[in-house]
Amino acid sequence: MSSERLIYLPLGGAGEIGMNAYVYGYGKPDQERLIVVDLGVTFPDMDGTPGVDLILPDVTWLEERRDRIEAIFVTHAHEDHVGAVAHTYKSLGAPIYARAFTANIARRKMSEHGHPDDAVTVMGAWPEQRDFGPFKVGFLPISHSIPESGALVIDSPSGRVIHSGDFKLDKTPVVGEAFDPDLWAEVCKGGVKALVCDSTNVFSPVAGRSEITVGPEIEKLVNSAPGMVVATTFASNVARVKTLADAAERAGRSIVLLGRSMRRMIEASIETGVLKDFPAVVSTEDAKNIPRENLMLLVTGSQGERRAASAQLARGKYMGLSMKEGDMFLFSSKTIPGNERGVIRIINAFSEMGVDVVDDSSGLYHVSGHANRPDLEALHDIVKPQILVPMHGEHRHLREHVKIAKAKGMAGVLAVNGMMIDLSGNAPTVAEYIETGRTYLDGSVQIGALDGVVRDRIRMALNGHVVVTLIIDDEDEPLGDPWCELMGLPETGSSNSALVDVLEHDLGQFLGRADAKTLRDDDKLGEALRRVVRNSAQGEIGKKPEVTVVVSRLH
Amino acid sequence: MSSERLIYLPLGGAGEIGMNAYVYGYGKPDQERLIVVDLGVTFPDMDGTPGVDLILPDVTWLEERRDRIEAIFVTHAHEDHVGAVAHTYKSLGAPIYARAFTANIARRKMSEHGHPDDAVTVMGAWPEQRDFGPFKVGFLPISHSIPESGALVIDSPSGRVIHSGDFKLDKTPVVGEAFDPDLWAEVCKGGVKALVCDSTNVFSPVAGRSEITVGPEIEKLVNSAPGMVVATTFASNVARVKTLADAAERAGRSIVLLGRSMRRMIEASIETGVLKDFPAVVSTEDAKNIPRENLMLLVTGSQGERRAASAQLARGKYMGLSMKEGDMFLFSSKTIPGNERGVIRIINAFSEMGVDVVDDSSGLYHVSGHANRPDLEALHDIVKPQILVPMHGEHRHLREHVKIAKAKGMAGVLAVNGMMIDLSGNAPTVAEYIETGRTYLDGSVQIGALDGVVRDRIRMALNGHVVVTLIIDDEDEPLGDPWCELMGLPETGSSNSALVDVLEHDLGQFLGRADAKTLRDDDKLGEALRRVVRNSAQGEIGKKPEVTVVVSRLH
Repeated sequence: MSSERLIYLPLGGAGEIGMNAYVYGYGKPDQERLIVVDLGVTFPDMDGTPGVDLILPDVTWLEERRDRIEAIFVTHAHEDHVGAVAHTYKSLGAPIYARAFTANIARRKMSEHGHPDDAVTVMGAWPEQRDFGPFKVGFLPISHSIPESGALVIDSPSGRVIHSGDFKLDKTPVVGEAFDPDLWAEVCKGGVKALVCDSTNVFSPVAGRSEITVGPEIEKLVNSAPGMVVATTFASNVARVKTLADAAERAGRSIVLLGRSMRRMIEASIETGVLKDFPAVVSTEDAKNIPRENLMLLVTGSQGERRAASAQLARGKYMGLSMKEGDMFLFSSKTIPGNERGVIRIINAFSEMGVDVVDDSSGLYHVSGHANRPDLEALHDIVKPQILVPMHGEHRHLREHVKIAKAKGMAGVLAVNGMMIDLSGNAPTVAEYIETGRTYLDGSVQIGALDGVVRDRIRMALNGHVVVTLIIDDEDEPLGDPWCELMGLPETGSSNSALVDVLEHDLGQFLGRADAKTLRDDDKLGEALRRVVRNSAQGEIGKKPEVTVVVSRLH
Repeated sequence: MSSERLIYLPLGGAGEIGMNAYVYGYGKPDQERLIVVDLGVTFPDMDGTPGVDLILPDVTWLEERRDRIEAIFVTHAHEDHVGAVAHTYKSLGAPIYARAFTANIARRKMSEHGHPDDAVTVMGAWPEQRDFGPFKVGFLPISHSIPESGALVIDSPSGRVIHSGDFKLDKTPVVGEAFDPDLWAEVCKGGVKALVCDSTNVFSPVAGRSEITVGPEIEKLVNSAPGMVVATTFASNVARVKTLADAAERAGRSIVLLGRSMRRMIEASIETGVLKDFPAVVSTEDAKNIPRENLMLLVTGSQGERRAASAQLARGKYMGLSMKEGDMFLFSSKTIPGNERGVIRIINAFSEMGVDVVDDSSGLYHVSGHANRPDLEALHDIVKPQILVPMHGEHRHLREHVKIAKAKGMAGVLAVNGMMIDLSGNAPTVAEYIETGRTYLDGSVQIGALDGVVRDRIRMALNGHVVVTLIIDDEDEPLGDPWCELMGLPETGSSNSALVDVLEHDLGQFLGRADAKTLRDDDKLGEALRRVVRNSAQGEIGKKPEVTVVVSRLH
């Protein structure tokens, strides 16, 4: 019995914001029964992952132990928590548990992938708890910027763990359950072994504001707008969408929902009873017959995503609707670091149309969904855990959160992806380091982050690509001259001759001198030709391209 | 005489922040004598300009009128104002004028390109004015985040134009000249035709703070640091570098300057007398013998640039120096939108080392170099121009600035790159639209932004690249099978066979059915093979790669 242990292992989300995937286990070492909390995605960018569609956690470690997985729990329906559930379903094969709204979204994903609906089971809120091997797990409601976010109460023979999920402490969240400190105190009063805790806003020094505070400001703004109002926020922020819609309704404006995820989230909210009194919406067709000063569009694309409704409106039209001078566009959202360029592009496009853009620089039209430092401390004080394990943060966030914990007399442990922590004892210890990583969904294929595929794409993007083709006859002699195809390279360089001519000339010169041994050896020949092209290009255009050499032998 | 006119034409910097290049002209239409104000660069990014080294304004319009250019003036030595001077020197061939510090930097650039030093002429500050054709031009000192920023007083037969350059209203700028409202009022009292004005911070609602306010805060921070302190800022912000160095000296710390531009800017400041009492610095060699708590490094790379000193320290070592637990890293700078990812990467790398990172989120350790909205209004009120022409801003900034001007009763005109404005009359009018654009410095070659080179690189990065090689014999029949080289693509797709095999198989099938007409026609054949590869790849891996087809004919 004494050799059994309680482990915590982040496979994603610890050392980054996004791609959450946490594992808990209980049992003898290497025989622990496992539960998984969240299977999320993160998003690619041109800098590091050009052409990639989605980034998933590498779940190889779990796949190799799939017979030991009791269940997968999803704390809430944000993509960085639920986005990989369908992509990993086949390889993990474990049942999925979530609250009703989250399950609704998860099931939509499952069915898009042709997986069975009943792989996702709905659980009620605390005090419902169910047994999963050595664990007993329940969803403890907590407020966040999406309906029905649930912290997990994870009971094991080593004690109770609270996995916070993403949260803020909001007593007036507009939609969904308010944070209930009394309920939380009740749940935690028997002692909590560990609080595994959201760290996103640990650097925000002032207590967070409630969702309800944005309503009056938005209403003022909408009332003052002379033309059409278009507002964007995260579609999953159902409370905000409702606040925006309520403001529209009170201003006598008809509401149009634009963008697939906007409609999907409202649908899911109504289906699951999370949203009971959403104002009537009109179709884009009907909207065309309504004077624009009586319209408010709620649209996707708060992060400047190129294909979303807001970006399409910025380029001209979306579903037959367009913006014009005197209209207003409201970002009821913040820009996630890294998305600034896309957002600014949209703002300037609207500016060119004469549209007034209101963003959140005033702080009036958006509040964060995450707990700021004082709120984190308030939760620590309610939960009073023996050990604080920060999660959902970059390294700097986790480190700061550990500092806070230690200053308050808790044991804190900085566990990044791949660090398996033994929580059984009084102090957390590192049990093992697991290899973790990322898997790229690329078109319809999953590729490893280290496969070299994306590295080659980046190299071609930075350096251009030259393909050298050479035919060798059956006497191991070049048949004619080698020739080059260039892609992503300037046509002429310093000599003012066509670059392709210079390269082919230099290759021809080289082949004229090449010895028989080189000509017979594909590798040697390829390497030599590559070197000629790179050096020759360096002289002509000041850069060394990627080179592919194709040698065709006629024998 | 009545047909002569005063024109303003932005070729860069109006509708963007960066790449400043403004033209003024006076004379009969299409015969105006021209002066150029600033020739700056902007910086590439992976999203839109992978592999590009530098982005320059397209100065074709000027090249075609080079005999009409009287002079080029550089308002200050920031890269977005001076960076293209050497790159365009040959094609424009006009003399360059600047104040001493700016000229020092410009000459360094010229000599790196092998251009003569004496192409750059130093001018003194106002009241010095010189004649340039129909213009009389003088440099009117104004404070900014670099020494000796100069507004231009441009007198023409149509009246006086004030070109603000970049500025803030700082009466205690630490290094360089304080803003002198009395001098400005004196210069403007005879009436100003147009104020062409910086718009960068038009959305910042509160008056800007003086450079001098950051000193005490930095000093407190440095005094409280137990280990080595490393601070970064823009190297050209000589006042800030001095403030940091002074704080180090007072705390008994030896100062090391790391990064080429850091040393270059201090050198230029001392050579030109801008900086008279910079503390002694020690070499990196000597630094190794000094206890780290007695060291302060001033380093380049405040924007997370991969090759700069800060990023190299974040990866491990720079010039034999490295950071460790208990050290502090200070960003005495703000992150320019678009650079967030690189900066955050560095912060997290330092966090992993146990280094405490202090950024400007508190607002204590950095002040902007640009005038905020109340400061802009203060300048309007001093200059009292007939016409306000906002520049140095994205469209949204220019539009807001025009709104302010109009609300204050000035004529305002929103002129973006390529809009030639006639300033002769009482109200500004658009005289002509000029084609403008960007030129990319790519390695050692200048390429047009629309040449397709970069577009091809982006496509390869997003889609991968397949090269198909096929030999056609002298009877117009395929000699053997076609073969494919893949770059940036996954090895296997849905059929679990190697992607290259699937593609080659499908190409072979196609060729088996191809008619003689197709086989004889390179274009037709190439297009057909391309289509086979793209469709086949779509089925296998869910994406369509870029395809290059190389057909070699043996006759």
